[in-house]
Amino acid sequence: LAQGTGQAFNGADMSEYRHDPLTGQWVIIATNRGQRPDEFAAPEWKRVAADCPFCTGQEHETPPEVARFQLPVQNGWQVRVIPNKFPAVLSPPPALNGAPHGLPGLGVHEVVIESPRHVTSLTHLAPPEVALVLAAYAQRLAALLARGDLAYGLVFKNVGAAAGASLEHVHSQVVGTALLPPVLDERRRNWQQSHARSGKTVAAEFLDQELAAHLRIVGQTRNFVAVAPFASRVPFELRILPLAHRAYFEELSSDEAQDLGLLLLDLLTRLESCIAQSGYNLIIHTAPFDTSRHDYYHWHIEILPRLTRTAGFEWGTGCFINPLAPEDAARRLRDA
Amino acid sequence: LAQGTGQAFNGADMSEYRHDPLTGQWVIIATNRGQRPDEFAAPEWKRVAADCPFCTGQEHETPPEVARFQLPVQNGWQVRVIPNKFPAVLSPPPALNGAPHGLPGLGVHEVVIESPRHVTSLTHLAPPEVALVLAAYAQRLAALLARGDLAYGLVFKNVGAAAGASLEHVHSQVVGTALLPPVLDERRRNWQQSHARSGKTVAAEFLDQELAAHLRIVGQTRNFVAVAPFASRVPFELRILPLAHRAYFEELSSDEAQDLGLLLLDLLTRLESCIAQSGYNLIIHTAPFDTSRHDYYHWHIEILPRLTRTAGFEWGTGCFINPLAPEDAARRLRDA
Repeated sequence: LAQGTGQAFNGADMSEYRHDPLTGQWVIIATNRGQRPDEFAAPEWKRVAADCPFCTGQEHETPPEVARFQLPVQNGWQVRVIPNKFPAVLSPPPALNGAPHGLPGLGVHEVVIESPRHVTSLTHLAPPEVALVLAAYAQRLAALLARGDLAYGLVFKNVGAAAGASLEHVHSQVVGTALLPPVLDERRRNWQQSHARSGKTVAAEFLDQELAAHLRIVGQTRNFVAVAPFASRVPFELRILPLAHRAYFEELSSDEAQDLGLLLLDLLTRLESCIAQSGYNLIIHTAPFDTSRHDYYHWHIEILPRLTRTAGFEWGTGCFINPLAPEDAARRLRDA
Repeated sequence: LAQGTGQAFNGADMSEYRHDPLTGQWVIIATNRGQRPDEFAAPEWKRVAADCPFCTGQEHETPPEVARFQLPVQNGWQVRVIPNKFPAVLSPPPALNGAPHGLPGLGVHEVVIESPRHVTSLTHLAPPEVALVLAAYAQRLAALLARGDLAYGLVFKNVGAAAGASLEHVHSQVVGTALLPPVLDERRRNWQQSHARSGKTVAAEFLDQELAAHLRIVGQTRNFVAVAPFASRVPFELRILPLAHRAYFEELSSDEAQDLGLLLLDLLTRLESCIAQSGYNLIIHTAPFDTSRHDYYHWHIEILPRLTRTAGFEWGTGCFINPLAPEDAARRLRDA
């Protein structure tokens, strides 16, 4: 039996959604041909520009691009979107090849290369370049939504090995999944119920409280506010929200992209001076790709520095132990 | 204002439960006096036995013990339980000292020192020593439950820096919290509903499926089975469950402790040969400390190797991307 099983699972690429009845969670089992156990660890860090597949001139090293973005009066690309070479989900999905199975791993997994130059942080870009990156995120989310076969789209950025990055060249990822993850489905339900009760979004109530307390605000512009949330999970956690009701990041206007870009540049510059070389994850949450009314939803950005390690308590309970009060984090970030 | 705020939050120890309305999660803000940002990173690893506060002869370096366990005909302790020197939760809890606040951080945070000798893994212990460690876990959970003021108790073990450990001397932690974390509350609801529908526990149904499929079983004894779960979140994830209905780990019998100890020794030896020096978290889930009937609950142990890094996708969605099929993981563990 073990032999037969081995043939079923060995040697073939696999992308499959599986549900766990005990935790209630879905996972994506995504294997790459020939991957060995010692390759599960973070790959070698490519520090040298000459070696980097994301630099201008190395376009042949990546799959063909699905989109490119240019600044006015520019030759060549400024932002380039390519399929991920090692995708977690695929379209069309690979056939299920084993006896026990979940659901086919239908989805889209893209990489957004955020500069033709070999730079390692958004803070190395000029404000119009950052605005163009944000516009690219919005356009890719809109493209995933328009397909009609996906339930959810997420933009995220892993910066530094501790945050799960394998290349240092400034980039993000976009993933569209055929399933709405249960954590987000539960959040949707809670937000809908709260909105139905109070007539306000959960996010607007959160904003009201943070603006009134004024203890954890780190930055504010015409359209956006950045806060170290009251219940921060990790030191220097940040949350950015539009001040007005906005459900869809994919509808970000050019003016909003400029404004958000400046805020993000300021925040990340402050953050980098507080956390030195430690990495962070940046996550953009937009409304699920369903056709219900999203009057309850408010898009937002999470920034999660990776100074601390999650340990058994966090894995077992989903509850984080944070050694830095967000009031202190906000003050340090403002003073940076 | 910033100055005033600074005085409210600076310089005082703090342990506070805080709820986040957007994620629905609770966090524990737990600060230690004088902690600086560069101390959020993993502390220096104490490799030298002479330096280790957990070794026999160094008992004066730790707070006074709350329990000790001995083997028959032994001089001195074999397992020693002490209050955590840097507790996340406290009993009685510290006063809330800032304007915005959550709930006082009432709880218990203990360390279980699992050998008087400077060894770094349960696999360095003899079977009766491992059985005694398991009996100590059960006794500590029973002691937390008996207090009557806690909602939940968790035993967990962090092995290796990647898993969040700060000392290598073999040890675990026990945390009792005044709140049941929402992730576990939601799980309780789902398990109760499923049990009411089918008359079987979710765990028993899971066991039936895994035993019938027989693709992911890694070990089995008279009382227990170890499996690489169908929807494993990380490479080489393992789950241990009692074959019969058991809600309370704290009721582990001496005979079961012997049996479980042998299984655990075998599993961890196999695991260590597959994941080399990478760390892991081990988590014991027992029924919540409420007075409802726990006919829906089945205690279980999770082992989560830390070969891979969680990145933005996992943080944003709660959904894990696992590059190793559990069928392959189980075969490698069986062959190890």
